[in-house]
Amino acid sequence: MSLLLDNRFGELPPDNSVNTKLFLETVSHLPTFFDCLGSKVFSLIKSDINGNITKIKEVYLKDPHRYVTLQHILESERQDLGAEWPKAGATLALMWLKRGLRFIQILLQSLADGERDLNQPNLIRVNITKAYEQALKRYHGWFVQKIFNTALYAAPYRSNFLKALSKGEDVKEEECLENLRHFLVNFAATVDAIYDMYARLNAELDYTV
Amino acid sequence: MSLLLDNRFGELPPDNSVNTKLFLETVSHLPTFFDCLGSKVFSLIKSDINGNITKIKEVYLKDPHRYVTLQHILESERQDLGAEWPKAGATLALMWLKRGLRFIQILLQSLADGERDLNQPNLIRVNITKAYEQALKRYHGWFVQKIFNTALYAAPYRSNFLKALSKGEDVKEEECLENLRHFLVNFAATVDAIYDMYARLNAELDYTV
Ligand SMILES: CCCCCCCCCCCCC/C=C/[C@@H](O)[C@H](CO[C@@H]1O[C@H](CO)[C@H](O)[C@H](OS(=O)(=O)O)[C@H]1O)NC(=O)CCCCCCCCCCC
Ligand SMILES: CCCCCCCCCCCCC/C=C/[C@@H](O)[C@H](CO[C@@H]1O[C@H](CO)[C@H](O)[C@H](OS(=O)(=O)O)[C@H]1O)NC(=O)CCCCCCCCCCC
Repeated sequence: MSLLLDNRFGELPPDNSVNTKLFLETVSHLPTFFDCLGSKVFSLIKSDINGNITKIKEVYLKDPHRYVTLQHILESERQDLGAEWPKAGATLALMWLKRGLRFIQILLQSLADGERDLNQPNLIRVNITKAYEQALKRYHGWFVQKIFNTALYAAPYRSNFLKALSKGEDVKEEECLENLRHFLVNFAATVDAIYDMYARLNAELDYTV
Repeated sequence: MSLLLDNRFGELPPDNSVNTKLFLETVSHLPTFFDCLGSKVFSLIKSDINGNITKIKEVYLKDPHRYVTLQHILESERQDLGAEWPKAGATLALMWLKRGLRFIQILLQSLADGERDLNQPNLIRVNITKAYEQALKRYHGWFVQKIFNTALYAAPYRSNFLKALSKGEDVKEEECLENLRHFLVNFAATVDAIYDMYARLNAELDYTV
């Protein structure tokens, strides 16, 4: 389970603020998640998410003392970017990044919970579809939704996907799911905290691509 | 017609060698071509092609004197990369880049030649499909081919596409097509020269993605 075990998110402090430096360090390993989906064309999604991370990192590195937490970034940009905000800068990049993270979170949670299509128990389409519907679908126009439906057919088998997440380590399925559950604790809390922050700061947009 | 008019490829010398520096300068404007297709999701393709260009540029900048022409790059890498070659380095990046360029070339040529679906004269699906079949299809597995078929429905109207290529300049359609034809002369010669080079140096691969 090395991909997830080696890159655990830290526990949040009582005020649920997310430390920018730690967040960026941990999250930068996550795009390899999309390699576990098998087909190399998913690397296009990986690039999109990597682009989000790079954008946030660039803003952070301009003034690490000013941007200690993610909330500092949003608040500074709200001041600096004027009418463009929140559809600009690291605020926009994190807005989309959090949706990709939510997609991953729901997919893994659904697997950990043992949700399955009983007719096709070794497929993960039902888990991917659930994650897509809750995290992304409403932000996608008909064209991207259609692409998603096509992409669904290239999704890997459940067993292969779990194996890929373990990066070849020969762990039993139950152990794999146990690792998933451990990973999800702080990961879900972090993603929730980012969503709460966007709601609180009125930084969420619902335009479609 | 500014996108194409402002970024004309140069005439090739008698030996058909392609100057690396000039090629990179001119080709780096072409990915904006994919913005003319309308939907923003085509920016994923743009990133793939930009990635190819960046890779070639990185190799070139390491030793501009060694890599004066594209052929110098392939020959040097053939020596340096051993068994990995040609599926590595700038050789691989240019192998894919040339296919994207061929796609653009055939699509524009087909428009310039007035090829149309008489039942749907303002659609360019027939032109895009021709370009795809000749330039890319054989290198794509069933999954990417399926994505292509879906993407086809997001293709812009002919009139809008020609307008986008002109970047808002208010040119008549006939003038637009005339500009296309001018652009295509050196562009097609350059793409042909790169294909010839790959054949000559035995650098072409036909694996699918
Ligand atoms: C030869 C054939 C060619 C045909 C080509 C067709 C092209 C195919 C296109 C497929 C769409 C892929 C999904 C990517 C969509 C992206 O467009 C969106 C928005 O992307 C955001 O856009 C913003 C501006 O509005 C900024 O630029 C953000 O950038 S910024 O950093 O600059 O601010 C950027 O991330 N991201 C998303 O929707 C996020 C997607 C997350 C992951 C989704 C997981 C799904 C997994 C499914 C598994 C079964
Ligand atoms: C939410 C839903 C999410 C679902 C996501 C699904 C993902 C969608 C994927 C769509 C595929 C897009 C096409 C891109 C395919 C690319 O995979 C290929 C090969 O790409 C090459 O691969 C090499 C290794 O084999 C190196 O990495 C090259 O990189 S290297 O530089 O490192 O060496 C790289 O370019 N390029 C291509 O096939 C080139 C494509 C050229 C342009 C095609 C124009 C078509 C226009 C159609 C208009 C109607």
